Amino acid sequence: MKARNTDYEARVRKYLERQNFMHHIHFHLDHIAPGETSGRLKVEDIHKQQKGLVHGGVIATLADIVAGFSAYTLVAADQNVVTGEIKISFLRPAKGEELYARGYVLKSGKKINFCEAEVWSIEDQERVLVAKASTSMITI
Amino acid sequence: MKARNTDYEARVRKYLERQNFMHHIHFHLDHIAPGETSGRLKVEDIHKQQKGLVHGGVIATLADIVAGFSAYTLVAADQNVVTGEIKISFLRPAKGEELYARGYVLKSGKKINFCEAEVWSIEDQERVLVAKASTSMITI
Amino acid sequence: MKARNTDYEARVRKYLERQNFMHHIHFHLDHIAPGETSGRLKVEDIHKQQKGLVHGGVIATLADIVAGFSAYTLVAADQNVVTGEIKISFLRPAKGEELYARGYVLKSGKKINFCEAEVWSIEDQERVLVAKASTSMITI
Amino acid sequence: MKARNTDYEARVRKYLERQNFMHHIHFHLDHIAPGETSGRLKVEDIHKQQKGLVHGGVIATLADIVAGFSAYTLVAADQNVVTGEIKISFLRPAKGEELYARGYVLKSGKKINFCEAEVWSIEDQERVLVAKASTSMITI
Repeated sequence: MKARNTDYEARVRKYLERQNFMHHIHFHLDHIAPGETSGRLKVEDIHKQQKGLVHGGVIATLADIVAGFSAYTLVAADQNVVTGEIKISFLRPAKGEELYARGYVLKSGKKINFCEAEVWSIEDQERVLVAKASTSMITI
Repeated sequence: MKARNTDYEARVRKYLERQNFMHHIHFHLDHIAPGETSGRLKVEDIHKQQKGLVHGGVIATLADIVAGFSAYTLVAADQNVVTGEIKISFLRPAKGEELYARGYVLKSGKKINFCEAEVWSIEDQERVLVAKASTSMITI
Repeated sequence: MKARNTDYEARVRKYLERQNFMHHIHFHLDHIAPGETSGRLKVEDIHKQQKGLVHGGVIATLADIVAGFSAYTLVAADQNVVTGEIKISFLRPAKGEELYARGYVLKSGKKINFCEAEVWSIEDQERVLVAKASTSMITI
Repeated sequence: MKARNTDYEARVRKYLERQNFMHHIHFHLDHIAPGETSGRLKVEDIHKQQKGLVHGGVIATLADIVAGFSAYTLVAADQNVVTGEIKISFLRPAKGEELYARGYVLKSGKKINFCEAEVWSIEDQERVLVAKASTSMITI
């Protein structure tokens, strides 16, 4: 995909600094390309629900972040992106020591970037797909 | 709605203690009734994204928690609940000093409780609906 | 809710004439108000799937139509509406002799009308909620 | 993927005969494999909405059928499948002379098959992705 401004990576990095909630949950977005971003989270006790599994809210947050920034890499310099809606399907419980989340633009448009996100759990050095998301990212 | 076990409130309270991620984001679930739960979150800097608004991941997490526990109040004593999928529509930015989240069972079934959740922002002492969620809570 | 043009009912009626697929499935939209429309469908054999129940595609189509037109009543005279995305939860099988579908705008915005739709089955003269939909209707 | 009964194709074909609504809209499911089905629809005037584009309800119906049958190929001989929920994102208007729809199981489980569906429009002999769906198919 093609970014509308070549400066997309610097813009994303600037935003990341002020992503308080992302920092609060210890997620690191480390890959930024036109129409795609991904990152990793080392699973800690703070991420868990009552059964010791990763909380669905953590997974939803990761999906929202990587999909949102994948859209953000494509918009013009004076534009921003907000999540219109997101649906997350929880395919399996996340039991691993690390999560890997990848978001990408499925269809880029002027008003909406339709994106998807995958969240993988790293379990015994293998990747297991634990969630899949579909979202409408609105350009403002 | 009718709970399958009268002990539903004690069961929810026991689970809440071990909801690490819920505590990590400072959300308090304070209303527990058969087929309905709700709670509040005082907005802090940790909850915000780069624009100073409440992060979508916070809102998604609240929706997941209140909807999930609304289903949990209805299942039998040897049963548990996991989120199958959730869709959240972000109607407005959340600018208020507090969030109020309410989840309820729309249709109770043996395998699935179809639930909805609303997230309201308290702005100048008025409630503004900022998000609406629809979810399939799976009984296991 | 308030329509941006007073002529909304005539505009909807004109569109309805050319809604071939709606006619093909014998659905009648008979109530048109600002931000809300509804209609009815008499269940025939053509609407059924292999088990003799109403096909999910019929229900999804009804939800899409009533939600879409509820948004259409609110846009300006030179604007149109397309469905960005729709999610439908199938709460119960539809066994009745008639379906009643109602769509309404949950949050009206310049770019998006967030709408919901309910589909009810009329069984022995009682209404049973068989499906609930949530959708983003895009203004173009 | 692996079907739980080797007879899956004959079972699907038997069901297809009684899929009245599918026949009413002239859709043909012609590919049946374990965890995947696909089919084609020649676009006619009956499929259109007021603007001459294919109606969203047609696309939603196709997505529901191909995803549902992809799940149905995997369940045991005494089991059936119903749609729990489906979300469809409409990426582009469908302007072509033919639609191609493909459904597949993303994650197979005992209670739920999480499926996806793609709907493509054949325009000037090229395939254009016009819609993507994500759905929970419930085993009963």
